[in-house]
Amino acid sequence: DLALQTESQFGSSDCLRGKRVAITAGPTREALDPVRYLSNHSSGKMGFALAEAARKAGAEVTLIAGPVNLATPAHVKRVDVIDARDMRDAAERAADLCDIFISAAAVADFRPASVAEQKIKKREGCDESAITLVKNPDIVAGIATRSERRPFTVGFAAETQQVEQYAQSKLQRKNLDMIIANDVSGSETGFNSDRNAVTVIDRHGNTQLPEALKADLARQLIEIIAVKAQK
Amino acid sequence: DLALQTESQFGSSDCLRGKRVAITAGPTREALDPVRYLSNHSSGKMGFALAEAARKAGAEVTLIAGPVNLATPAHVKRVDVIDARDMRDAAERAADLCDIFISAAAVADFRPASVAEQKIKKREGCDESAITLVKNPDIVAGIATRSERRPFTVGFAAETQQVEQYAQSKLQRKNLDMIIANDVSGSETGFNSDRNAVTVIDRHGNTQLPEALKADLARQLIEIIAVKAQK
Repeated sequence: DLALQTESQFGSSDCLRGKRVAITAGPTREALDPVRYLSNHSSGKMGFALAEAARKAGAEVTLIAGPVNLATPAHVKRVDVIDARDMRDAAERAADLCDIFISAAAVADFRPASVAEQKIKKREGCDESAITLVKNPDIVAGIATRSERRPFTVGFAAETQQVEQYAQSKLQRKNLDMIIANDVSGSETGFNSDRNAVTVIDRHGNTQLPEALKADLARQLIEIIAVKAQK
Repeated sequence: DLALQTESQFGSSDCLRGKRVAITAGPTREALDPVRYLSNHSSGKMGFALAEAARKAGAEVTLIAGPVNLATPAHVKRVDVIDARDMRDAAERAADLCDIFISAAAVADFRPASVAEQKIKKREGCDESAITLVKNPDIVAGIATRSERRPFTVGFAAETQQVEQYAQSKLQRKNLDMIIANDVSGSETGFNSDRNAVTVIDRHGNTQLPEALKADLARQLIEIIAVKAQK
């Protein structure tokens, strides 16, 4: 579709005019003590690219960001959070007011069961240790399984193997409207890269989006989400 | 001492001319699986400031850096590493050839006992988990306890309580020539700040350096280290 392609290239689509979109991005950091934490390699680039694309498509965008080193896209409202529980609180508040919720953050599944107030000291002669972990809230599932004020809910599945199979199962288990699956095992695409390749999955089937700059991919995804969210 | 002060302010001291200095900086990241890791809040700023100050004082500087977002100071040789074992290997190689070794990195004391090759999946209905940890190599102690080719060895102690007491004990236990203690519990000084306040401790006593920009503090520390390393 030449018209669509032109719109996409020049960012002139206003497919989300009048819509409110909330997007989570980046990793979360789960504190062990004042110094140490558990985190993951999410750079936040995909979520930030989606926020920029949604804004350019006319949406009012709230971007809930974990600790990342990225500039806020123009005219996007940014809420900074550190851990999964803070992100959940910010996401729930934003979801109350939005039409579309996109969970692009790599939320830590688990956090340390307790946070030490002081830096934990090594014990002499002790060569092993352990961290007990408890499950974090499942932010996107919490929003997708709402009975009221439920936005069109999009999740991500970043996997290193059996990518589509895991994504498919996540779509159903979490009651998502759509899931965007990507393989983060390669160095070309994935967490710290500026490029990505994804598979968009919903109840009706799969769409492959070949490798592209995250900014270009974000524009394509926003157009797909806008169409699906209308239905 | 006005002369010293002037030198310090204008960076014209060449107190390390002809010396080779190796400095570690930043955190280490200890992988749990391809996606998740354990790390800490070290920004690397103090170590990078020391590398720049040592270079300006005439030294040939090798900077062994964990994952940080900082530019390499001019004319400094940088070696990037991720985890403690890589940092140990790079530090041991650099220590073979250096006169002064400064351990400014916040090396993770422990790492996950095993690294999963694929992203670890949550198990349904399982609300707790645990990570078994094993001790990482003690890089600065390994160098300070060498019987041959032992450089003048300087450690850091970043603590949140009983700062000088812990630092004093670390100095002796690890056989260091000097330890630089700082309290990272405040938000003004410490890990992500551009400012710091430290206590320099050696066998002969303590010197307090009041709060200053890390770059200024680094110049003062390099002058103290240069004098002590001569003896």
